[in-house]
Amino acid sequence: MKIITFLTDFGTKSGYVAQMKGVASSITDAKLIDIDHEISPQNVREGAFVLLTTVSYFPVGTVHVAVIDPGVGTNRRNLLITTKTHVLIGPDNGLLIPTAHFLGNFIVYEITNKKYMLNTISNTFHGRDIFTPVAAHIINGVPFEKFGNPINDFIDLDLGKPIIEKSSATGKIIHIDKFGNIITNIDGINLRKVLDFDKKIMIFIGQKQKEIPFLKSYAYIRKNSYLATIGSSNFFEIGINQGNAAKKLDVKIDDDIKILFT
Amino acid sequence: MKIITFLTDFGTKSGYVAQMKGVASSITDAKLIDIDHEISPQNVREGAFVLLTTVSYFPVGTVHVAVIDPGVGTNRRNLLITTKTHVLIGPDNGLLIPTAHFLGNFIVYEITNKKYMLNTISNTFHGRDIFTPVAAHIINGVPFEKFGNPINDFIDLDLGKPIIEKSSATGKIIHIDKFGNIITNIDGINLRKVLDFDKKIMIFIGQKQKEIPFLKSYAYIRKNSYLATIGSSNFFEIGINQGNAAKKLDVKIDDDIKILFT
Amino acid sequence: MKIITFLTDFGTKSGYVAQMKGVASSITDAKLIDIDHEISPQNVREGAFVLLTTVSYFPVGTVHVAVIDPGVGTNRRNLLITTKTHVLIGPDNGLLIPTAHFLGNFIVYEITNKKYMLNTISNTFHGRDIFTPVAAHIINGVPFEKFGNPINDFIDLDLGKPIIEKSSATGKIIHIDKFGNIITNIDGINLRKVLDFDKKIMIFIGQKQKEIPFLKSYAYIRKNSYLATIGSSNFFEIGINQGNAAKKLDVKIDDDIKILFT
Repeated sequence: MKIITFLTDFGTKSGYVAQMKGVASSITDAKLIDIDHEISPQNVREGAFVLLTTVSYFPVGTVHVAVIDPGVGTNRRNLLITTKTHVLIGPDNGLLIPTAHFLGNFIVYEITNKKYMLNTISNTFHGRDIFTPVAAHIINGVPFEKFGNPINDFIDLDLGKPIIEKSSATGKIIHIDKFGNIITNIDGINLRKVLDFDKKIMIFIGQKQKEIPFLKSYAYIRKNSYLATIGSSNFFEIGINQGNAAKKLDVKIDDDIKILFT
Repeated sequence: MKIITFLTDFGTKSGYVAQMKGVASSITDAKLIDIDHEISPQNVREGAFVLLTTVSYFPVGTVHVAVIDPGVGTNRRNLLITTKTHVLIGPDNGLLIPTAHFLGNFIVYEITNKKYMLNTISNTFHGRDIFTPVAAHIINGVPFEKFGNPINDFIDLDLGKPIIEKSSATGKIIHIDKFGNIITNIDGINLRKVLDFDKKIMIFIGQKQKEIPFLKSYAYIRKNSYLATIGSSNFFEIGINQGNAAKKLDVKIDDDIKILFT
Repeated sequence: MKIITFLTDFGTKSGYVAQMKGVASSITDAKLIDIDHEISPQNVREGAFVLLTTVSYFPVGTVHVAVIDPGVGTNRRNLLITTKTHVLIGPDNGLLIPTAHFLGNFIVYEITNKKYMLNTISNTFHGRDIFTPVAAHIINGVPFEKFGNPINDFIDLDLGKPIIEKSSATGKIIHIDKFGNIITNIDGINLRKVLDFDKKIMIFIGQKQKEIPFLKSYAYIRKNSYLATIGSSNFFEIGINQGNAAKKLDVKIDDDIKILFT
């Protein structure tokens, strides 16, 4: 099956996403699936995180178009990245790189061949004019080498190096979901090696300090109470059962977080 | 045609819905259609209402995945419900039951066969790890009995028993739409038997009491004025033409409503 | 390829859009693509603008259903418009007309044949009960003449007549996107004939007056600074790099704008 996905910060307003889907549909009959269009405006790190945690649920061969693109219209390059299983397309600003590392065996091409772009290229919307038509031609079978040459000096990005020790862990907030759950870059699988469920932990986040339980799931605490857990993407997260933790703690993406446990 | 629909309270943020669609696309080429992802967080009753009023517009054979799931990660059961026309999949918390009653001839199965789930099952996201792969296997033709055994002690839910009398009706707010229109559980077809359009009625809602006209449609009253009408799903609703009635009346889902007429 | 698009002010809440897709899927296997469901409530002009700027990216033969419909339930007519390349379906309130002019060679039919509508037609949701089934039958090949007769007295709408002179231009705000960028009806291609990038211009908008640079793209100014540019749909727009210009300038759709340059 042929699938193209779309990840942007455009919102669903304004027809921008629809313009990309129209372009794609003019070239290919692939299935078009939205990943997320509500990434915080121009937040490349948040976009990188959502892409990273979503791609592996899609079948081998899926082509992902990601457009968090504050540098559009400058000389920042357009990238096509092949990996062991999926193809990634987007701007050269680090957005695709954590996912490329995760999928493995990746090669980065700079997209330069105008043959696979729209005839008129705007200064503000390469998602529609370059990335989407390239994705559609790839899914139709055009070989990667036709789009441009491999490069090695792409812009790198890592999502932080959280530290997990015997009785503490430190990291950063990497995403806040619709419920206000605070998702960190602290790897849940490694954390579980030093911390069991049903323990009390101390969290330091924003200006606040709080003792909260570390639980298997949200439902194990009464309504409106704080808890920490391992989220569905295997990252450590903090939430309030049926409440909005991010608002209550007044935190935002990239804020530091530290947890203590014994 | 093969169709799977998705109803959740996840919002379109975070890639959660996309993860479900990726899982589905890895198993089946069915068409994937969103019903609504903006159900009020963990509001099972609102989710039940939107599912109930939407399913009958889909073709026979459609499989509906619904995930309003405050109990995820506990021992609440996973359900597959077959009806005369459609298949429903979701948590055992009442969410699916009003729709099952409406579609008729329903059988409730507990999903237990791990063969049709993802290999790794998180504690917080059964929509992705259990409900969606089950839906995809069903649409591919796996017989219902393969997923688990029928049960009778599922959790029931009714959307309230509104009372319609000769000169009054009482019920509850069951949904507030994007325009701020207040949709009640008072059945419009029965109400019309005792109340004609173009009459004045007295409504008691929240802390307020108001005399408003009962009209055929929103456009029959001037801008910014209140009206009552029968909405597109045949329930009694209250709105302000081109305004937000729910905000102005400061009401919320589950609030009581009473109407008087003569 | 068969494609039906949907443009409404319904939001993604409430299942209204899903009901339309269910109806469409009961008649045709066409691909169903959302254009935008976040048009400001009942703002026909904004809907007309988004439709106009989006349709041309879709393949020839696409059928577009547009439902910004404050007059639903009255005797306003239901329209089917054929053009050189696409088909447009929606209410007779001007919504479709700018796009019809843009696509060219258009014929307006009044939809009257009940055979192609749902059996029960609500007073509040013709998008589901009339426009969508008509769209699905058209994409399945039913000839246009079967739906009703051509008319000439449809309600017209133009998106304003901006004036571009040697050292000034005046127009109106026609859309505000998710980023808060202010999009005007001033045609960018004509404006570029009298105004070069990298010039300073004076804008008069809302109650405010401001000198800002006219730049090729958002990225050419530092964060949180104002700029003017030509947007991806070739209209003059004003924004703040990584900020929300509409909020800061406290403007709304239909406000006047004047720009001076030398």
